[in-house]
Amino acid sequence: MAKEVTSKEENYSLWYNNLVVKADLAENSAVRGCMVIKPYGYAIWEKMQRQLDSMFKETGHQNAYFPLFIPKSFLSKEAEHVEGFAKECAVVTHHRLMVDPNGKGVVVDPDAKLEEELIVRPTSETIIWNTYKNWITSYRDLPILCNQWANVVRWEMRTRLFLRTAEFLWQEGHTAHATMEEAQKETETMVQVYAKFAREYMAVPVVVGHKTESERFAGAVDTMCIEAMMQDGKALQAGTSHFLGQNFAKAFDVKYTTKEGKPEYVWATSWGVSTRLMGALIMAHGDNNGLVLPPRLAPIHVVMVPVFKKPEEEEAVLAKMREFKELMERAGLTVKIDDRDNLRSGFKYAEWELKGVPVRIAMGPRDLENRTAEVVRRDTLEKEFVNWDSLVEHVAALMEQIQQNIYKKALDFRNANTYKVDSWDEFKQKIEEGGFLLCHWDGTKETEAKIQEETKATIRCIPIDSFVCEEEGKCVYSGKPSKRRVIFAKSY
Amino acid sequence: MAKEVTSKEENYSLWYNNLVVKADLAENSAVRGCMVIKPYGYAIWEKMQRQLDSMFKETGHQNAYFPLFIPKSFLSKEAEHVEGFAKECAVVTHHRLMVDPNGKGVVVDPDAKLEEELIVRPTSETIIWNTYKNWITSYRDLPILCNQWANVVRWEMRTRLFLRTAEFLWQEGHTAHATMEEAQKETETMVQVYAKFAREYMAVPVVVGHKTESERFAGAVDTMCIEAMMQDGKALQAGTSHFLGQNFAKAFDVKYTTKEGKPEYVWATSWGVSTRLMGALIMAHGDNNGLVLPPRLAPIHVVMVPVFKKPEEEEAVLAKMREFKELMERAGLTVKIDDRDNLRSGFKYAEWELKGVPVRIAMGPRDLENRTAEVVRRDTLEKEFVNWDSLVEHVAALMEQIQQNIYKKALDFRNANTYKVDSWDEFKQKIEEGGFLLCHWDGTKETEAKIQEETKATIRCIPIDSFVCEEEGKCVYSGKPSKRRVIFAKSY
Repeated sequence: MAKEVTSKEENYSLWYNNLVVKADLAENSAVRGCMVIKPYGYAIWEKMQRQLDSMFKETGHQNAYFPLFIPKSFLSKEAEHVEGFAKECAVVTHHRLMVDPNGKGVVVDPDAKLEEELIVRPTSETIIWNTYKNWITSYRDLPILCNQWANVVRWEMRTRLFLRTAEFLWQEGHTAHATMEEAQKETETMVQVYAKFAREYMAVPVVVGHKTESERFAGAVDTMCIEAMMQDGKALQAGTSHFLGQNFAKAFDVKYTTKEGKPEYVWATSWGVSTRLMGALIMAHGDNNGLVLPPRLAPIHVVMVPVFKKPEEEEAVLAKMREFKELMERAGLTVKIDDRDNLRSGFKYAEWELKGVPVRIAMGPRDLENRTAEVVRRDTLEKEFVNWDSLVEHVAALMEQIQQNIYKKALDFRNANTYKVDSWDEFKQKIEEGGFLLCHWDGTKETEAKIQEETKATIRCIPIDSFVCEEEGKCVYSGKPSKRRVIFAKSY
Repeated sequence: MAKEVTSKEENYSLWYNNLVVKADLAENSAVRGCMVIKPYGYAIWEKMQRQLDSMFKETGHQNAYFPLFIPKSFLSKEAEHVEGFAKECAVVTHHRLMVDPNGKGVVVDPDAKLEEELIVRPTSETIIWNTYKNWITSYRDLPILCNQWANVVRWEMRTRLFLRTAEFLWQEGHTAHATMEEAQKETETMVQVYAKFAREYMAVPVVVGHKTESERFAGAVDTMCIEAMMQDGKALQAGTSHFLGQNFAKAFDVKYTTKEGKPEYVWATSWGVSTRLMGALIMAHGDNNGLVLPPRLAPIHVVMVPVFKKPEEEEAVLAKMREFKELMERAGLTVKIDDRDNLRSGFKYAEWELKGVPVRIAMGPRDLENRTAEVVRRDTLEKEFVNWDSLVEHVAALMEQIQQNIYKKALDFRNANTYKVDSWDEFKQKIEEGGFLLCHWDGTKETEAKIQEETKATIRCIPIDSFVCEEEGKCVYSGKPSKRRVIFAKSY
C-alpha cells in the first residue's frame, strides 16, 4: 500500500496528493473544487477543533453562529473588502426548482428569482458587523468576543485538497472593542494562540509576523500571520489575525457611547484558521511511508497487530492485547487492535504507517512466552522489544518523545533552510532551492512586486519574533536603506 | 426585564418569540429566514452537540464532511426525493461578481454562469450516496457509519426562530449496510438514541413511533420519529430516523459483492436532529419568568449575586463567593458571579431567571455573619437559606432534583393532555383544546387527509412504546376496523 505513494524527492506535489487520498484523509467530490473529508481526516480536524476551541474559550471568547448567506449589498459596503472577494463568489439567485415543461427533469423556476442576490459567505465580516450594530450601544456592551466554526466558499480556480478548496471549514473570530489599543492587543493575542497551537500541538514551528500592505486581508489595517516551512522549502500561511481598525464599523455605522458620553466608532479584529492546517500537518511531517502524526492530534495513538500462524495462537495473543489496550486507555491513550483476519501483518504495518499512527505494537506466540512486545515508533521507525512490566509506561513516554522529536526535526529543517541573503544574484539562485530568505527590503510595494514578478517569491511576513531581524542594511533588490530584514519565500 | 415577556396564557406564540430574543438565544438576521444564534443560545446547542456526538460515537459512528453544494442532476436521481425538496432550494447559478458597468455597485458577472446549477444542500443523501459508490465494493466495506455536523438550507416561506428557519444547523447520519435487517436495526437504534437524549438530557418526554406514509421523509421506505408535547398541547417532531431501503443505492448504482460473490444493492439509513431541538427545549419547560433549563444542558449551573449596601461590604461578600465558586467548580458545576456594579440585584435576579439558570445564590453581609446563603431553584422558584457547611453538596444535589423534576412536570403535563378518543364529535372538540388524541384509524391516506382538512390535526406517529395502543377498534373517522391506536395532534 505505502508503495503506491510517490516519493517526496521524485515529486513533492504528487507525494502530497497521493498521501491525502491513500491515507483516507480526503478526496475530491463530484462538485468542482469541493472536497469530502473522510472519517480519518475529520477525526484529526476534530482534535484540532477541540484544542483550538478550548484555547479560544480560555482567552475569553464565546461561540455563536451567523448566516451562511450575505446580501450582495453588504459585501459592497467596504470598498477594499468587496474588491478582494467579488471575483470568487458563489451567488444564489433563485429559491426554487420546478419540473421542466420541456420534459428535461428539473430546472430553475424563473419565477423564483431573489430580489437581491445572496453570496455564500467567503468570510463573515459584513454580516457580522451588520449584526453587531444592534448589539452595541454603550461602552458597557464592549468588548464582544465571538467566534464561529463554519464553512465558507471561495470560488478558487485552481484547487488542491485541504490547501485550497472552493468550500472549506474554518473558524472565524470577530471581536469589537472600545479602543484601538485593545483591538491591537487582541490581534496579537490571537496570532500568538495560533502560534502556540501550531508549535505545541501540530509540532510545526512557525514564524509570527506582520503581512506587508499588498498581502493584507481585504479590509484590514494590519494582518498578522503564522508562517510555516514545508519540506520542499516553500512557505505555508497557516493562520491570520487582522486588525480591522474602524473600517467595518464605519461601513456599517457601528458606534458606541463612551464613559464620557461621546459617540465613537467601534474597533474590530478578525482571525481565522481553516482545514488548510491539515495540509500543513501532512506536509510538515510526512515521509515516504506516509503520514507522521503528532501524538497530540493523532486519532489513534497505538495500533496493535497480532502475529500468529495457527488459529489457536490468535486468541491467546488477542486476549493479552485486550488487556494492554485497557491499561493503555486508562493511561489516556487511544488504542486500536487490528484483528482483521483477511490481511497479512506486513500489509497492516504498511497501512498504519501510511496513516501516521505514532506507535505500533506487534505481539506473537514467542512474545507471550517472553513476556515482551515489539514496539515501533512511527517517526524514526525504530524497533525495540519491551517487557510487559514497563510496556504501558514506555508507550506513554514515547508519545511525549515523538511529539518533541518531530517538532525538533521540523525546526532543524527550517533553520537549515533559512538564509540571510544580501545580494540579488544570491537571492535569485537561493530562491530556486527553496527555503526562507531573510533579506533587507526598501519597504515599497514596487520593489515587492518586481521581486515577485522576477522570482515568484513574496514577502511572507515581517517577523516579530523567532528571528533576529532588527538590523540596518540595504534592500536586496533596490539597494535603498532598510531597518530590518523580512522573510521572502515561495509559498502555497 | 422578565416583565417584557408576554405571558404564555395570553399568547403562547408571542411568549415563545419574546423568550428566544429576550433570553439572548437567537435573533432574526438581515437575510430572510436566516437566524443569528447568539452566544448564550449557541452554548446550549454546543452542550447538545457534545452529548449527542458522544452518543453517536458510542454506537460506532464516525464524523465526516461532505460538500455544501449538490449538483442539480443529483437531486433529480431519486424521484420522490426531488419532489420533496425542489420547491425550497437555494440555487447557486454564478461564481463571480463584477463592477457594474452602469456604475451601480457590484453585479453578478453574466460570464460566470455555472454549466450546471448547484443546490445548497437541503439534506445530503444524494451527494453522500454518490460518494459512497466509490467507497463500497465488497461486503468487507460495510457497514459505513458516518455522521456530519453541518448547516442546511430549506427555503421555507414562513419561518420562526429555531423551529423553522431557512438555514439551520443539524447533524445527519448516513449509513450503508449489507442487509435490510441491519439497516432497519440501525434506524431503530438511532431513534432510540434520540429518545434517550430527549428524555435524559433535555428532560423532555417523547413518544417513539413510525410516521405514516404521507408524513414520511421524501425517499424513505419508513420514517421513525420522536414526538414531544409542548405546553400549548401541540406536538413537535424533535428527531427522525429513516430506513431508506435500497432507494438511494439504486438511484446512484451502489452495489457490493456478498461473501458468496453475488452483486447486491446496499441498504441505507439516514437520521437527524437540528437546532429545532432548541425550540423544543424552550417550549417544553419555559414559564412566564423565562427559560427553565435542564441542568445537564445549562451553560451556567449557578449564578451568584452579591447583595450589599456599602462598598466595603462588597469585597467581603465577593471574596466568599469566589471561594464557593472554586469549590463548586471542583464539584463539576459551572458558576458565574454577577458582579456588575451598575445593576440592582432585583434586576439581576430577573435576568438570570429569564435565562433559565437552574440555581441562584445570593449572599449579603448578614449571610457572612450567619454563615448562610440564599438559594433559589429556578424550576419552582423556592427559596431557602443554606448553611455554608452543606452549600456545595446541597447545590450539587439540587441539579439532579431539578433535572428530574422538570422531566416529571413535562411528563405529567403530557399524560394529563393525552386522551383516548373514540367518536368523531369528541375528536373535533378535543383537538381544539390541544393535546395528543389516541385514536383508531383505518390506515388509509384518504382518511388521514380528510381528518387533516377538517381539523388541521395530523397523525404524529404510530407509537412503538410509551403508550398502550395495541387493541382492536374502529376508525374514529370512517368507522372501519383498526388494530391499533395512533396519535393525532396539531403540530409545529
